[in-house]
Amino acid sequence: MGRWEPNAQGRLEEAALELYLEQGFDETTVAEIAARAGLTERTFFRHFADKREVLFRGRELAAALETAIAEAPPATAPLDAVAAALESLSEFFADRRSHARRRQSVISANPGLQERELIKLASLATSIADALRRRGVAEPTASLVAETGIAVFKVAFEHWLTDPTGRSLDQHIRQALAELRAAVQS
Amino acid sequence: MGRWEPNAQGRLEEAALELYLEQGFDETTVAEIAARAGLTERTFFRHFADKREVLFRGRELAAALETAIAEAPPATAPLDAVAAALESLSEFFADRRSHARRRQSVISANPGLQERELIKLASLATSIADALRRRGVAEPTASLVAETGIAVFKVAFEHWLTDPTGRSLDQHIRQALAELRAAVQS
Repeated sequence: MGRWEPNAQGRLEEAALELYLEQGFDETTVAEIAARAGLTERTFFRHFADKREVLFRGRELAAALETAIAEAPPATAPLDAVAAALESLSEFFADRRSHARRRQSVISANPGLQERELIKLASLATSIADALRRRGVAEPTASLVAETGIAVFKVAFEHWLTDPTGRSLDQHIRQALAELRAAVQS
Repeated sequence: MGRWEPNAQGRLEEAALELYLEQGFDETTVAEIAARAGLTERTFFRHFADKREVLFRGRELAAALETAIAEAPPATAPLDAVAAALESLSEFFADRRSHARRRQSVISANPGLQERELIKLASLATSIADALRRRGVAEPTASLVAETGIAVFKVAFEHWLTDPTGRSLDQHIRQALAELRAAVQS
């Protein structure tokens, strides 16, 4: 294994994003990404399976959500546990809004990446449902609450990306959840 | 254009499903599907863009949902309009449970088809949100209700497929919606 490269993952993410925006996703090779980051292809493949995966942090997000749901107080209602878990991601995204916007414009330009994003979101829903079942939440509630949580996150994330007032992601999540509660109760 | 073939679409769907189950999706060609259905490849391509599309009726379902949402009485709450639209699909699926089960086992065996199914569901959510906005429902409510409706449909559909008591799809949709309301209100 090569020597330790400080923040290799972040440098590769940034280099990939720059190249995807400059010359297009399809036109960019892993060799170019590694070169732009001042790293080797071998280092790239220690961090990411392929050049699509540079755009996703699915496993990290899933692990964070699962931990947060597991740690919610026992009496917490399933949707509240999921909402709190999603809001806890806000800190991770706090200084990444510009990165997230540029990432979104790469994804919007490429149907294959849009598909990949849907798969990542579906897989997050599965992780959330699993975490809820481990708390004793029965089906179909576990799946319904998980899918609903992802729907809230998706809508909140889109609004956060384009919000001119710069409110934080957790504020957008709380607002989307309030809108959902109003829509479901009416 | 060739002559009119009675129920060509249904025959091609059935032939494709049989072949996918017998020999696998990847191993099956359009030529084999057409031959099994007693039709030509040209007829196949009049009905479906490729061999994946035989498994999906996305455009038909989207059109049915959009019409049902447009026709809901003006005072209907957004989620109720979406629920009624989803329940109206029950008739289409009523005599297709065996077909739907076999189709699901083909899809479960193939990651590419699972991705395609996620895309079709996301596209149905987009159609629902569009139909709601045409009724004057504002964002983010339109998107939230649309995504939630699809979450309810997904869970209800899975339960309907495996339900030993044979309750209809609309009953499963109503039950999933009731569970969701309970989870959101608690």
